[in-house]
Amino acid sequence: MQTSRVEAFSDGVFAIAVTLLILSVGIDRAPHGDLGTYLVDLWPAYLAYAVSFLTIGIMWVNHHLLFDNFASVDRPMLLLNIALLMLIAFVPFPTRIAAEFARSEVDRRNAALLYGLTMTITAILFFALWMYGSRRLLREDADPRVVSGITRSYLPGAPLYGTATLLAFVSSITSLIMFAAIALFYALSAALFGRTDGTVSETAASGDAS
Amino acid sequence: MQTSRVEAFSDGVFAIAVTLLILSVGIDRAPHGDLGTYLVDLWPAYLAYAVSFLTIGIMWVNHHLLFDNFASVDRPMLLLNIALLMLIAFVPFPTRIAAEFARSEVDRRNAALLYGLTMTITAILFFALWMYGSRRLLREDADPRVVSGITRSYLPGAPLYGTATLLAFVSSITSLIMFAAIALFYALSAALFGRTDGTVSETAASGDAS
Amino acid sequence: MQTSRVEAFSDGVFAIAVTLLILSVGIDRAPHGDLGTYLVDLWPAYLAYAVSFLTIGIMWVNHHLLFDNFASVDRPMLLLNIALLMLIAFVPFPTRIAAEFARSEVDRRNAALLYGLTMTITAILFFALWMYGSRRLLREDADPRVVSGITRSYLPGAPLYGTATLLAFVSSITSLIMFAAIALFYALSAALFGRTDGTVSETAASGDAS
Amino acid sequence: MQTSRVEAFSDGVFAIAVTLLILSVGIDRAPHGDLGTYLVDLWPAYLAYAVSFLTIGIMWVNHHLLFDNFASVDRPMLLLNIALLMLIAFVPFPTRIAAEFARSEVDRRNAALLYGLTMTITAILFFALWMYGSRRLLREDADPRVVSGITRSYLPGAPLYGTATLLAFVSSITSLIMFAAIALFYALSAALFGRTDGTVSETAASGDAS
Repeated sequence: MQTSRVEAFSDGVFAIAVTLLILSVGIDRAPHGDLGTYLVDLWPAYLAYAVSFLTIGIMWVNHHLLFDNFASVDRPMLLLNIALLMLIAFVPFPTRIAAEFARSEVDRRNAALLYGLTMTITAILFFALWMYGSRRLLREDADPRVVSGITRSYLPGAPLYGTATLLAFVSSITSLIMFAAIALFYALSAALFGRTDGTVSETAASGDAS
Repeated sequence: MQTSRVEAFSDGVFAIAVTLLILSVGIDRAPHGDLGTYLVDLWPAYLAYAVSFLTIGIMWVNHHLLFDNFASVDRPMLLLNIALLMLIAFVPFPTRIAAEFARSEVDRRNAALLYGLTMTITAILFFALWMYGSRRLLREDADPRVVSGITRSYLPGAPLYGTATLLAFVSSITSLIMFAAIALFYALSAALFGRTDGTVSETAASGDAS
Repeated sequence: MQTSRVEAFSDGVFAIAVTLLILSVGIDRAPHGDLGTYLVDLWPAYLAYAVSFLTIGIMWVNHHLLFDNFASVDRPMLLLNIALLMLIAFVPFPTRIAAEFARSEVDRRNAALLYGLTMTITAILFFALWMYGSRRLLREDADPRVVSGITRSYLPGAPLYGTATLLAFVSSITSLIMFAAIALFYALSAALFGRTDGTVSETAASGDAS
Repeated sequence: MQTSRVEAFSDGVFAIAVTLLILSVGIDRAPHGDLGTYLVDLWPAYLAYAVSFLTIGIMWVNHHLLFDNFASVDRPMLLLNIALLMLIAFVPFPTRIAAEFARSEVDRRNAALLYGLTMTITAILFFALWMYGSRRLLREDADPRVVSGITRSYLPGAPLYGTATLLAFVSSITSLIMFAAIALFYALSAALFGRTDGTVSETAASGDAS
């Protein structure tokens, strides 16, 4: 199967998952009490929305970077990709849970664990997809420096998210802040470095965010 | 009408249906009680989400395999395809019902029947679409072995789902497990066989999952 | 602007609107009472889902038929198209209302009026879009017989839906049945006639359904 | 990265955000009381739906106009675009709040502020995206008159929305009417002027609506 077709389908899932994040703001819940207070009190929801939107947005960019290096797509790759999309489409759920329970002391840890677990598995799948694809499906004209650059930059992704997740057992608020920091750091570093050093550092700078 | 256009529209419906499966986890319901317990108790929902995601994902792959063999699309085919998409877009509903009632003894049978009925009709429509298309719309350069391979592999689909559905009258839990097993079996066999023997067995191995 | 771009965006809205019809089955409402009874009692919802899915599906086919005859798209056409999509994306709402109130004697009339009004305005916009486009944006190589065939076939659309809507004042159940009959009639006639007489009658047979 | 890919992903988000506006009509809330009265009383929701649909629709047109002038897309542009889409996908939320609270005297101001703030930030991001893109990513064959025409026409966007937002402190109903007027004015002027004077005034007439 051609990569373009898989990318088009994946783009669809990315675009819908990102738009469904609006559910995490509680668009389907009737506001109660004073509207002004209600809307201001939603600030953890706005933040959760922004962090997940940014995270999935960067993943979408990275997804294209990966597939640009593949000559074609085989069955195991299709399945790995379906598994990855399964996690991406799941993100609105932990985002909503995090948005609703970010302020209640008791439940914050569980919300952070759910969010972190989702992100860690996503990062592992992203890495597995790249490992499989870069060994079996690489284009003949793929630049070896780009390939090793991506590999290098994807390595810390899962450990980073794993650490942030385990951090929830010590301090759930630090854990949540670290999820936001990871997204922000890669988004900004991608924007700043990406312009100066060209493709290798571009992918290196942005790859981890998955 | 060109097949590419129909495929693009179908891709859209597949991608949206698969992403709306997040509704089956109850993203639109307010969690109650202790959050940790609530999230752990959702395990049938996670499972239902994964099984339906995998099933629709494999159907999407198969949908492309079918249309690759068609030269064009006529009106009856358009209608058959709309009917098929009607069933695909319906899947989030039985998935949610199955997710919510998978553990209550009394209602599990009805949940399994609804899920199974949806899948059986989908499998029949998939088979009808292929039967019609392979007789009237086949490309001139379509490989006869591929064509007969797909036909052979699509035959057991509807009976398999039909059996799993009827099984609900005997044991609803076995019925639900069989739905998961069908999805898993075809996903794995497609990944394993697909790599060794090329197109014919590839389509043969994956076709039934519809 | 190229027609292909407008079609791609429109395809997206069609595909999403059609998939969101699952909301009309009440996927976001917690089932109550005995699950079996609940699911069987939902039959008006299944029917409403099927009728609206079929109707939007046929509209999607017709939308492509229209734009195939246009050389380009100008600003007024873009606005007409946005207005049309506004109505298409609205369809899940009257569908849900019709699904929920199809059996309560008192409210059925209002449900039918809402559904009928939506469909009548959609048919008028479809006709306006074609009238504007066929006069100002026609391709030079557009077949005059196809063009007049589409015009002829689009004329009865709005009056038909208007009649079915007004019928709700006499008998709301007959009105609802007529909506289903219009969708079914055009779907079947398109499938039967479309195969024998080629493009003109094909478009003629299917055009009205908008 | 090619502009076509970014446009395809953006088109997806635009199409889904616009279709999710149906949530602002309260499709997920059970109607109560007499259905006729309920449906008629929803008029602010229908209006909010129409205004936001039109606004996002015009933004989609403008988004294409901008990217048509870019030769390629770099990392900062990708991030600016993700930030813009984050706002676009957010619109269903303030639309729903405005729809529900447009008639309660006390809460109308907060609803108007939320809606206005969202639109003002969107307009600023649109302007920032164009300023960055028109300085760094312009195609060599981009028409300078078109470029300066777009710049000129985008300048009043943010101040206009900002003024309408601040107006909520004086009269929240005037504020809401002004949001509708902005959308309507640009839609109509685009349709009327766009036909006579060609590209420059076309973009000039429609650009501000973002």
